[in-house]
Amino acid sequence: MTGFAEIDGELAVGGVPVSRLAERVGSTPFFAYDRGLLTDRVRLLRATLPADLQLKYAIKANPMPAVVQHLSGLVDALDVASALEMRVALDTPMPPEKVSFAGPGKTDAELRQAVAAGVTIELESENEAARIAATGAALGIRPRVAVRVNPDFAVKGSGMRMGGGPQQFGVDAERVPALLKELAATDLDVLGFHVFAGSQNLRADIIGEAQRRTVELLLRLAGEAHDPVRYLNLGGGFGIPYTEKDVALDLAPIGANLGELMDEIRPRLPEAQVVIELGRYLVGEAGVYVTRVVDRKESRGKTYLVVDGGMHHQLAASGNFGQVIRRNYPIAVANRIAEEPAEQVTVVGCLCTPLDLLGDNVTLPSAEVGDLVVLYQAGAYGLTASPTAFLSHPAPAEVLL
Amino acid sequence: MTGFAEIDGELAVGGVPVSRLAERVGSTPFFAYDRGLLTDRVRLLRATLPADLQLKYAIKANPMPAVVQHLSGLVDALDVASALEMRVALDTPMPPEKVSFAGPGKTDAELRQAVAAGVTIELESENEAARIAATGAALGIRPRVAVRVNPDFAVKGSGMRMGGGPQQFGVDAERVPALLKELAATDLDVLGFHVFAGSQNLRADIIGEAQRRTVELLLRLAGEAHDPVRYLNLGGGFGIPYTEKDVALDLAPIGANLGELMDEIRPRLPEAQVVIELGRYLVGEAGVYVTRVVDRKESRGKTYLVVDGGMHHQLAASGNFGQVIRRNYPIAVANRIAEEPAEQVTVVGCLCTPLDLLGDNVTLPSAEVGDLVVLYQAGAYGLTASPTAFLSHPAPAEVLL
Repeated sequence: MTGFAEIDGELAVGGVPVSRLAERVGSTPFFAYDRGLLTDRVRLLRATLPADLQLKYAIKANPMPAVVQHLSGLVDALDVASALEMRVALDTPMPPEKVSFAGPGKTDAELRQAVAAGVTIELESENEAARIAATGAALGIRPRVAVRVNPDFAVKGSGMRMGGGPQQFGVDAERVPALLKELAATDLDVLGFHVFAGSQNLRADIIGEAQRRTVELLLRLAGEAHDPVRYLNLGGGFGIPYTEKDVALDLAPIGANLGELMDEIRPRLPEAQVVIELGRYLVGEAGVYVTRVVDRKESRGKTYLVVDGGMHHQLAASGNFGQVIRRNYPIAVANRIAEEPAEQVTVVGCLCTPLDLLGDNVTLPSAEVGDLVVLYQAGAYGLTASPTAFLSHPAPAEVLL
Repeated sequence: MTGFAEIDGELAVGGVPVSRLAERVGSTPFFAYDRGLLTDRVRLLRATLPADLQLKYAIKANPMPAVVQHLSGLVDALDVASALEMRVALDTPMPPEKVSFAGPGKTDAELRQAVAAGVTIELESENEAARIAATGAALGIRPRVAVRVNPDFAVKGSGMRMGGGPQQFGVDAERVPALLKELAATDLDVLGFHVFAGSQNLRADIIGEAQRRTVELLLRLAGEAHDPVRYLNLGGGFGIPYTEKDVALDLAPIGANLGELMDEIRPRLPEAQVVIELGRYLVGEAGVYVTRVVDRKESRGKTYLVVDGGMHHQLAASGNFGQVIRRNYPIAVANRIAEEPAEQVTVVGCLCTPLDLLGDNVTLPSAEVGDLVVLYQAGAYGLTASPTAFLSHPAPAEVLL
């Protein structure tokens, strides 16, 4: 499951063994992301997906500025979900028009910043359209928008169901033609459409079906557009494996399917930039969360490793972020990565709650106080998706190597 | 379920109508805590529990410095779970010896600060005991400690099971006598014991049983103590109602039971300060989370109110923090508090994820963009137990009135 190298019997990130990295960082716990793995992942996508399909990074998955800077040189576009994320994106060399801003609850202040920046606002409702038009008029700037469409189909088997039925996201597909008529009367530059049908999906057939139905829907809606369609955001939803149960996504059939879809789109919408928007899939496997063993204790026949990190930094790994059934995320003793598994232990965080469970009855090499325990798959929705102020421990460092 | 007043048709916090309060704060969303409700809650406890039972506030429930300052003048002691919480506690007039520091993963640096501060360290393992002794020797200070005991009984029916079986918390009850012998040979001032058997419990009979078994256990262990026992922390675990299903805790039988237990303890351990440690029960019902409606939209027959807050500030209310079944927390339109319920709506936050659900099919007065939607029971484990950096929205203010 891990693309990280091993150096001198230790896990290495960006060529640096983790124990040395911990000295360099100066404190544990911390997150470490591997620049090479980010680059490799984009290369893999480029090699598998159609050449003229654009890749967008949804920075919500990991908004660390250094990560966003690195990816900005590799992908074609960035997506942001808040004013601060927009600032991080605009601090990269990425041109503003290649930055999109999505989200169902954008405030007037955020819309004003987005219009002033010249980013593409993915509008989520008729009300938001009117507010964007008013903002554009007030600033004397023609806002760039795309219509986020709530699709009239649902993707089944997804870890998270986002398309179909009533939703807070976007405008219902069947109401889009009427909205497009209204938009034609405003001074908005309507570039195209966005559909996001699902998230964290590991099945290529389901992703393929969602993309096919998305393209059908968008080609239909494009017929109602007033201006030529220059932007089609097909969403993403490519998952990564987190537990032993998970099988990694097979990218090849997705690439083949997208090839066929591009062949359909090109002649009908020759001006359209077609975009796949990925967050977790780009960064999730490129990061580890590094903790240090503070205590090793026995309790009624069970061995506990107590580490100095915990659910306040990696909530999902504790099984408490939306999961119904908790499963262990991959875990290792980073400075004993070459040693054979020797014992069953339970790895817990430093918080004063039984929820703070990082590895339940996991088999690891024999670890001692001072050893470094890492959780893999920590590159996406780790630090920012965790309650960092819970029990007021220091914030962990983040490093990119 | 709410102790908040109504003024001029609006919900009021500390005598200030919420719409005026939003102007004073200058931005939404925010948390508002009511000083009077905090005081009332302590008064209720003082009136119901034995007069010589000490009340301790576990500041992890709400570490806002103003809240801790206020409560420090009302309770007898404070409990902290990290170095930063300790700093907040020590900034109050509470004497250091009335501050306890608990937690299974205390680092050497934290122990050093705690020994230097002179707080009572609730030690969690043999290893930690040795590290505390070494720290005391290095600093020339005799550390004050209490032994956290992993009880040999479990409390059933608790929302969270913390006693019994193997645990990362404390020292197994059956191993405490041997540990006490070891401690007698060190230069640690062993004050007494701490047992925490459960959390967020709404049944007085179960809490009463846990307290009775805790006292039995501690009286037994006290017989093995080398020094006179001066400290018995019986834990807490008093719950508050969050959903319609929940029935508020009946404090009277708990008070009566504790009265009987104090009668048993006093003659046997005349020097012991007996403590009940409460977090959520002291502060949880004294706070609201205030958001503003940014959009009102229809989607396939369903009405959505999109607010400018969300799960990044009130994760538990979204049902994604360790819950198996999501239930609505109490919710209201604060500036229409006197209006009759008029429609069924779904209240969602501003985040770009379907997880960001604050009120699912709730019946509220008809609300418009600009109205203020509040979530009650937001005084404990709200802001600090939420992934505030998720999608990089601004941090909410916190105010105490």
